[in-house]
Amino acid sequence: MTELSLRGVFAPTLTPIRADLSIDLPAYTEFCHRLLEGGCHGLVLFGTNSEATSFSGRERMAAVDAVIESGVAADRLVIGSGAASVVEAAELSRHAVESGCHGVLTLPPFYYPGVSDEGLFRSFAAVLNRVNDERLRMYFYHIPQVSGIPLSTALLGRLAEAYPRQAAGVKDSSGDADTLHGLHEVAQSFPGFAVFCGTEALLLKNLQGGGGGCISGMANVLPHVIRDLYDNWQADDAEDRQNRTNWIREAILECGFNVIASLKVIVADQTGRKGWSRVRPPLVDLTEKEQGQLLERLSSPVPA
Amino acid sequence: MTELSLRGVFAPTLTPIRADLSIDLPAYTEFCHRLLEGGCHGLVLFGTNSEATSFSGRERMAAVDAVIESGVAADRLVIGSGAASVVEAAELSRHAVESGCHGVLTLPPFYYPGVSDEGLFRSFAAVLNRVNDERLRMYFYHIPQVSGIPLSTALLGRLAEAYPRQAAGVKDSSGDADTLHGLHEVAQSFPGFAVFCGTEALLLKNLQGGGGGCISGMANVLPHVIRDLYDNWQADDAEDRQNRTNWIREAILECGFNVIASLKVIVADQTGRKGWSRVRPPLVDLTEKEQGQLLERLSSPVPA
Repeated sequence: MTELSLRGVFAPTLTPIRADLSIDLPAYTEFCHRLLEGGCHGLVLFGTNSEATSFSGRERMAAVDAVIESGVAADRLVIGSGAASVVEAAELSRHAVESGCHGVLTLPPFYYPGVSDEGLFRSFAAVLNRVNDERLRMYFYHIPQVSGIPLSTALLGRLAEAYPRQAAGVKDSSGDADTLHGLHEVAQSFPGFAVFCGTEALLLKNLQGGGGGCISGMANVLPHVIRDLYDNWQADDAEDRQNRTNWIREAILECGFNVIASLKVIVADQTGRKGWSRVRPPLVDLTEKEQGQLLERLSSPVPA
Repeated sequence: MTELSLRGVFAPTLTPIRADLSIDLPAYTEFCHRLLEGGCHGLVLFGTNSEATSFSGRERMAAVDAVIESGVAADRLVIGSGAASVVEAAELSRHAVESGCHGVLTLPPFYYPGVSDEGLFRSFAAVLNRVNDERLRMYFYHIPQVSGIPLSTALLGRLAEAYPRQAAGVKDSSGDADTLHGLHEVAQSFPGFAVFCGTEALLLKNLQGGGGGCISGMANVLPHVIRDLYDNWQADDAEDRQNRTNWIREAILECGFNVIASLKVIVADQTGRKGWSRVRPPLVDLTEKEQGQLLERLSSPVPA
């Protein structure tokens, strides 16, 4: 039986593709096992780092099926079910519930900018009502710098009030500590409402504020380091552990390449599977030269 | 046989929905016939005004089928095939070609902001290559204020060069006369590359610059007025006709409500079908009071 809300370190799992752009399912399922063995409590399949919206609904559902068939426990999975259409978001969410997954991480419809809180409430409500399943746990996905659609604390409070069982929490990828703090206040009003940060750089702050953990792209390449911080966040040296965790993000950002493409290059290097470095358009693979620069930058040891 | 490129006045057809959010196909097909009889040369099914991205691919393809089955000539149709995923865009484009439609109007993938021209070229190329059909005519959809993704003239030129038969033109919904002028220059380098404006307010300028016509939301409610301007753009009083055409847009904008919801209210009023005023989330229906304000504002006669 799944718990009401999650806690822990989750990887928004990168999605390996073949030269014809299709998902490389053997490499994908192997990677999911690798992340879970490497320290992740669970996986978010088809978040932003997974290039979720670059795949069709059918491709996404087939990939979830393959991961479960490969032996990953479905209740360790949260499925990104965001889509520009509430009907597609509902289809993806229903598939996740019926597959026994813990829950879904759901973007607001992201085509039309400047929509009202009322329109966003109706959007999430339309998804929840169409799925109409008590087992559904929905985490609302706040990533305004990508989706263009901020989720206000008023909106999240209204959703938590209207759907006390199904509104399970929020993932905040804004990267902003004040925003995260505002979400902790929402969670205080709705016990069980879990707050995840989208950057492990705020993991310690998030746990100190009562949050549930992180769903962070960097967990694709350094799950054990982030897990170590999670397991020891109340230790005296927790700040040191946080700083050690920050190293990889800072190194990647310093190189200035697309972060998703960069993470895939690192996984290609770690696994020895060169195809891992491919991304789907509109993203662009790093050139050989860029790959070399990135890996060179990362070749210095993780600071002790 | 379809011509290489289109000319004329096209309505990005509004999409009527039922209370359960499903497309009201009888109302939809009736409306398509109404627009063609009212003066539109053709229709763009599933553009921005159609709330295209708010519907699933399956819903969109079924609606296209219904319109053709209702007796609308397929070669008067351009199908909005934009999607966040190039695989979905290819599926929608293939369906349009195989249905005998004139062409497709295709958004760039619109989830990830700040993607490069190289990434956008690869995106459109992926769609064109996957469909791999000489009959496909693609119009690139420039609507940066909504999609967040500008299409540069360099990108469009590169696409026209690489796909001389299939890169059929551009729809420019930026509303900016300088941008439109830049597109006229692209068209001069690639004869047959058609430039459509997304606002009828620039129709005269567009025709004077060699453009093909307009694909304008207002054509849903006043097709004959826009057609009159199109048919007489070389007449002495063309400027007067342009000004008369501008009236409805200015009145709608003055009310300050969402334009798509406003257009649907006007169609509800024109057709006597109240359900027409519904929009899909994340958009929000106009309230009864707002509907009254809008219709009151429009009740003054069109200036002579």
